[in-house]
Amino acid sequence: MTAKPFWEQVGISFVQHYYHQFDSDRSLLGALYLDSSCLSWEGEQCRGKVAIVEKLLKLPFRKIAHSITAQDHQPTPDGCILSVVVGQLKADDDQIIGFHQTFILKSIDESWDTSICSLIGRIAMTNEVVVAVLVHPALMAAHMFTFI
Amino acid sequence: MTAKPFWEQVGISFVQHYYHQFDSDRSLLGALYLDSSCLSWEGEQCRGKVAIVEKLLKLPFRKIAHSITAQDHQPTPDGCILSVVVGQLKADDDQIIGFHQTFILKSIDESWDTSICSLIGRIAMTNEVVVAVLVHPALMAAHMFTFI
Repeated sequence: MTAKPFWEQVGISFVQHYYHQFDSDRSLLGALYLDSSCLSWEGEQCRGKVAIVEKLLKLPFRKIAHSITAQDHQPTPDGCILSVVVGQLKADDDQIIGFHQTFILKSIDESWDTSICSLIGRIAMTNEVVVAVLVHPALMAAHMFTFI
Repeated sequence: MTAKPFWEQVGISFVQHYYHQFDSDRSLLGALYLDSSCLSWEGEQCRGKVAIVEKLLKLPFRKIAHSITAQDHQPTPDGCILSVVVGQLKADDDQIIGFHQTFILKSIDESWDTSICSLIGRIAMTNEVVVAVLVHPALMAAHMFTFI
């Protein structure tokens, strides 16, 4: 069996660590961000470690559980790693919803302890047409949920 | 009204151009890729302009129409632009399905003619649990469609 490329190994470890930390105590995620990091969530943006942690702590749920169903990792031209994660999340007692998040990861030392330069996230497919066509009416409420 | 940041203006123009070109004649998309560009689609990867164009031309449909419902753009540490696009597509006479694609865009001159360094795409939420819970059974076939 061929070993996975370096960037894929780093990306997979990061994803495991990030969502474990998010689900157990998201106040500690600040350690992964830089003062120059950018975050977009459902189109709302903020920049810098302090603002990002503030944003994470204001998210309107107490408990959350992420489940990852697919992830892709690529090297970028300047030696970072581009990671795209697809999964499902359950916040408090709400319905399970899909989400996808994109990260740019940067090494902060030679052992590839990782920082997040960029994070863009969206919950899955609140596209009105698809919702109207594909989703059972009784379950539309879960799809129309917005996260902010 | 505040003007959109530079990277957002470039990103929005790129997205409009890319999907217009994809839908009208995808054989011409090669002009947007570099020999070092990476593409992942539904977990399958290829690298370089030639391989990417070959991959695009082998996609199993004649007609396609993309519709964009959300897009996010961020500057990256090395002066590129990270763009995430969410939308729907209709290939030939198949059902409409959701998709999301992530790009890293690089300027090839001062006027920001853009090349794609990285592209990661997935069709929306083939996650088995969400499909089973949320989608009307008669319409599951469209969601389980894989693109390769």
